[in-house]
Amino acid sequence: MALSDVKALTFDVFGTVVNWRDSIAREAKALLGPKGYDKDWHVFADKWRERYQPAMAKVRNGERPWAKLDDLHHENLVELLKESEISGLSEADIDHLNRAWHRLDGWPDTIEGLTRLKRKYILATLSNGNVALMVNMAKYAGLPWDAILGAEVARAYKPQPEAYDRTAAFLDLKPAQCMMVAAHNGDLVAARGRGFRTAFVSRPLEHGPNKTRDLKAEHDFDVIADSFIDLAAKLGC
Amino acid sequence: MALSDVKALTFDVFGTVVNWRDSIAREAKALLGPKGYDKDWHVFADKWRERYQPAMAKVRNGERPWAKLDDLHHENLVELLKESEISGLSEADIDHLNRAWHRLDGWPDTIEGLTRLKRKYILATLSNGNVALMVNMAKYAGLPWDAILGAEVARAYKPQPEAYDRTAAFLDLKPAQCMMVAAHNGDLVAARGRGFRTAFVSRPLEHGPNKTRDLKAEHDFDVIADSFIDLAAKLGC
Repeated sequence: MALSDVKALTFDVFGTVVNWRDSIAREAKALLGPKGYDKDWHVFADKWRERYQPAMAKVRNGERPWAKLDDLHHENLVELLKESEISGLSEADIDHLNRAWHRLDGWPDTIEGLTRLKRKYILATLSNGNVALMVNMAKYAGLPWDAILGAEVARAYKPQPEAYDRTAAFLDLKPAQCMMVAAHNGDLVAARGRGFRTAFVSRPLEHGPNKTRDLKAEHDFDVIADSFIDLAAKLGC
Repeated sequence: MALSDVKALTFDVFGTVVNWRDSIAREAKALLGPKGYDKDWHVFADKWRERYQPAMAKVRNGERPWAKLDDLHHENLVELLKESEISGLSEADIDHLNRAWHRLDGWPDTIEGLTRLKRKYILATLSNGNVALMVNMAKYAGLPWDAILGAEVARAYKPQPEAYDRTAAFLDLKPAQCMMVAAHNGDLVAARGRGFRTAFVSRPLEHGPNKTRDLKAEHDFDVIADSFIDLAAKLGC
């Protein structure tokens, strides 16, 4: 199948579409600063994110039953608060902070790029974030998705094959009619392994000034772009 | 919970959001007229739709395993074509006609009403239509959904309780934070039975001039409106 057969773009979201690190740092500071805590909130965001893959790994390998990302984030946050010697938060405070993941800002090119891409393609999330997280984030950040798919409806966390296979099946498309868009080489390699087309969009600031991985496309993906506007141009939108 | 606690509107789609009867008649005529068939295409649409509930009933009662609506529509179409003595269609023709359900027009107030409602609420489909059908229809008709939910992701056909319960759960909302919007009394009664708020929107032309059921709200629903624009006004949007 040719690149012109692609009907849907399926998006990684954290890092690719939204700037989670600055957003989480902002939200943590806004809640915890007034309570007298003074920390490097970007380091706090990094530490929370570091617990993301290990938590999903336990679901992937069957060590625990299915749990949605909001619940994994919550468990990780409780551990991180303890480790950070932050105490005295109410359940409502913790829930509000956990839902900071529902209030992440897009990158500067995100909305314009998605709006252009949407004219030609179905735009679907293929994130490990759960449905409510993705829906609320889209309302907050103005992301014009056509469909919220991914881990929770597929009941599988990327890079498990089922996450990609079932997303294409929900759209009633062949894998080759779907193009995975991500800022992470591993996600694209996994999607390509299931027959998806692939687009790498570099997000050099995802981890702040210290990003060491995924600075560039490490494989021969179908499209390599440096923003969603660049991606739209390269796809003729 | 008060009506002001409602965060999401969940929509019945066939009949409530889109005018399936005129759209299917148009599509059937466009494909089959040039092949020499001359019929009352509205009657053809009605006969196709008559097979909808019995087909889902077999899934609901466990007589057959899960099957998505596109597949039920396809089986029903093959039977209807035979009954109507229409033959000689290619598989591609049949598939194109089956996907007429992906190309249904909204009612005249649909887009303006949804656009107003979207400013205040999460708008989600809670239809028996499958994800691809709903996504393609939204692209075709310009329906600005925030999320495509309902039967296929819930793995249950309305009015089964799980269709409502799981839709609210995907949105991480309590049932009372969801308002079902439908032109059909039975759908709203079932939703109310699961704790949803309810809005009846009358669609007197759903079945053409001969509509006999659901001409008006037969129960004390939370909101009763005669269009989506009226619904938006009554909900303060």
